[in-house]
Amino acid sequence: MREVAVVGIGVTEFGEKWETSFRNLFVEAGAMALEDANMSGDQIDEMFVGNMSAGRFVLQEHIGALIADYAGLVGNHIPATRTEAACASGGLAFRQAYTTVASGLNDIVIAGGVEKMTDVGGSVTTDALAGAADREWEGLVGATFPGLYAMIATDYMHRYGLTREQLAMVSVKNHANGAKNPIAQYRKEITVEDVIRSTRVADPLRLLDCSPVTDGAAAVILCPMEMARQFTDTPIRVLASAQACDTISLHDRRDISTLDATVAAGKRAYAQAGVTPKEIGMVEVHDCFTIAEICAIEDLGFCAKGEAGKLTEDGQTALGGSIPVNTSGGLKSCGHPVGATGIKQVAEIVAQLRGEAGARQVDAEIGMTHNVGGTGATVVCNILGV
Amino acid sequence: MREVAVVGIGVTEFGEKWETSFRNLFVEAGAMALEDANMSGDQIDEMFVGNMSAGRFVLQEHIGALIADYAGLVGNHIPATRTEAACASGGLAFRQAYTTVASGLNDIVIAGGVEKMTDVGGSVTTDALAGAADREWEGLVGATFPGLYAMIATDYMHRYGLTREQLAMVSVKNHANGAKNPIAQYRKEITVEDVIRSTRVADPLRLLDCSPVTDGAAAVILCPMEMARQFTDTPIRVLASAQACDTISLHDRRDISTLDATVAAGKRAYAQAGVTPKEIGMVEVHDCFTIAEICAIEDLGFCAKGEAGKLTEDGQTALGGSIPVNTSGGLKSCGHPVGATGIKQVAEIVAQLRGEAGARQVDAEIGMTHNVGGTGATVVCNILGV
Repeated sequence: MREVAVVGIGVTEFGEKWETSFRNLFVEAGAMALEDANMSGDQIDEMFVGNMSAGRFVLQEHIGALIADYAGLVGNHIPATRTEAACASGGLAFRQAYTTVASGLNDIVIAGGVEKMTDVGGSVTTDALAGAADREWEGLVGATFPGLYAMIATDYMHRYGLTREQLAMVSVKNHANGAKNPIAQYRKEITVEDVIRSTRVADPLRLLDCSPVTDGAAAVILCPMEMARQFTDTPIRVLASAQACDTISLHDRRDISTLDATVAAGKRAYAQAGVTPKEIGMVEVHDCFTIAEICAIEDLGFCAKGEAGKLTEDGQTALGGSIPVNTSGGLKSCGHPVGATGIKQVAEIVAQLRGEAGARQVDAEIGMTHNVGGTGATVVCNILGV
Repeated sequence: MREVAVVGIGVTEFGEKWETSFRNLFVEAGAMALEDANMSGDQIDEMFVGNMSAGRFVLQEHIGALIADYAGLVGNHIPATRTEAACASGGLAFRQAYTTVASGLNDIVIAGGVEKMTDVGGSVTTDALAGAADREWEGLVGATFPGLYAMIATDYMHRYGLTREQLAMVSVKNHANGAKNPIAQYRKEITVEDVIRSTRVADPLRLLDCSPVTDGAAAVILCPMEMARQFTDTPIRVLASAQACDTISLHDRRDISTLDATVAAGKRAYAQAGVTPKEIGMVEVHDCFTIAEICAIEDLGFCAKGEAGKLTEDGQTALGGSIPVNTSGGLKSCGHPVGATGIKQVAEIVAQLRGEAGARQVDAEIGMTHNVGGTGATVVCNILGV
């Protein structure tokens, strides 16, 4: 397998983008990535795009070809593939793209992700998102997606003594980071009190524990490391890309407060990259809910089980801490256009490792991403380095 | 890249499967494939599953993990990925699986496809299928999927003099083949008169020109050729797997009666396999409508443009002809559970090359598949040989 680099990144502004469409969101991100890599579309050999539920959000399937067409990539009739694993759809696209470059099948590949969630009403959105969980054994009996994560939070708080305030601090920290990110949906700081007093969604989770509904797209361009300096002075190496699955239903897990797929994907990624958690300088984790960040920090090995609340309270996951988590603002503040999130995470690591992250810049030479589908039935972890 | 073989196949009966569910359909096909390969699920390294629109048909996304879970494959936390390109979703799954084995990333991979289309009403089905075309520039202005293929048929018949009878003969031949296939949805022979007198769907296409709405699943197991004889005495080699895209809208094509993505994917597949159309002994093409088979035969190089009607009329595409087309009964008679079709095509070639195709057995050493998404915005071609 060849060494692979990321040579271009593009992320749209995240938010409620009434003025644009599903396809145009991606075109905007793709064009930014091409420009960033100083290349033209006809240099692309293949494309992978992550998307969860365009069938329900914009009544459109066949997303790979649609996106390739509107991004001007059909001239060479390249292969264009949509990958889907709910909220980990973008992570899958990145891993497939990485694999085809590493194997020598392709030289230059674009990996993207896109979701347009605000073209339908809130009840359709909520129901479509419930499609990430088990429709037959969870959705149809009334479990919403926040409801499932609320069960994880309840179990975790009971077993490990996490306080309501510590949980809120995840959101406060991510909003502090997002306030410094020009593409973030919610660029404002909040307090622990704001979180604790916000509307109850599914006890103990409140509105400000939950990532929002968001439109957005992201794209990154990969090529062999040996070609990378044709396109950029700051290629970022892909040290690992690993994926794992678990039971789709929460009730089938041996332990709902540990995501075994996170543990498995993390271990595989560390082994591929030949590093340990101690060597990771920053990490973008999948904080679809505040409790998800707490679990992820532990399941990826950054602290022992039960200690992530204290790590957060001590400021160790903030900018300047021992392991900055979600410098982008995470899903909570940056926003969570489902299919795009896994790619945006990679773009954030690349921007940081290049030293282009502006007010939210941290000092890191190796960064990691952690992208989760559903309540943990799919996890993709990538490790990148200078 | 390593040589890859198919060592196991499984296809459910196709039809209106009221008695089973989306997930159980796949489990049935997957279990058959494992049994056929004399292996257990814990030997699988990775899984790819093609599915077009479970989000709309059964309100379920996150298909890879769901299927891996219900197929008993989560114990090792393998990666499980859904691929989607409308009716070519299964073809994409096969190609990704092939790539990961050929590259050495994986040893044993399962590629599957599944669609459960009859759990919703007909109008939802039709609208979901229209998601394979361009929703904004085709669907929203009233173009149905049969309507788009009717435009191709009208253009083709006008330019090349194809007769209504010749078009019907595609369906008659495929029903004759399907009548010999135990898994086919419509196991009965029909006449040219039956086709011509059937209900008008979108002029000139009539009901018996159109593939049906179908539930079904298919799975195949791939491994390196050097391991294949551990699992089967009749491994079938994958000589090529190629994919191409084109504009999603018909009106953006330079010529609507030639599918440029078919031409591109076909040429790539021939080049990979080092063969010419003359060396192909049989082919499963994507006859979602009769006109699609006519175009495919020509675009893949089995005869010159405009001659596929005569080739069909002369019986050259029938069992025992010079190039048997759709020995399985094709999408028309065998049925078209969208995500499963691309995998079922591979399974048919494998069964034929093994000499296990019973009453529809043809004499071939090399076979080809042709799987189309939408009106030709995605095409996957595979070539397999003994």
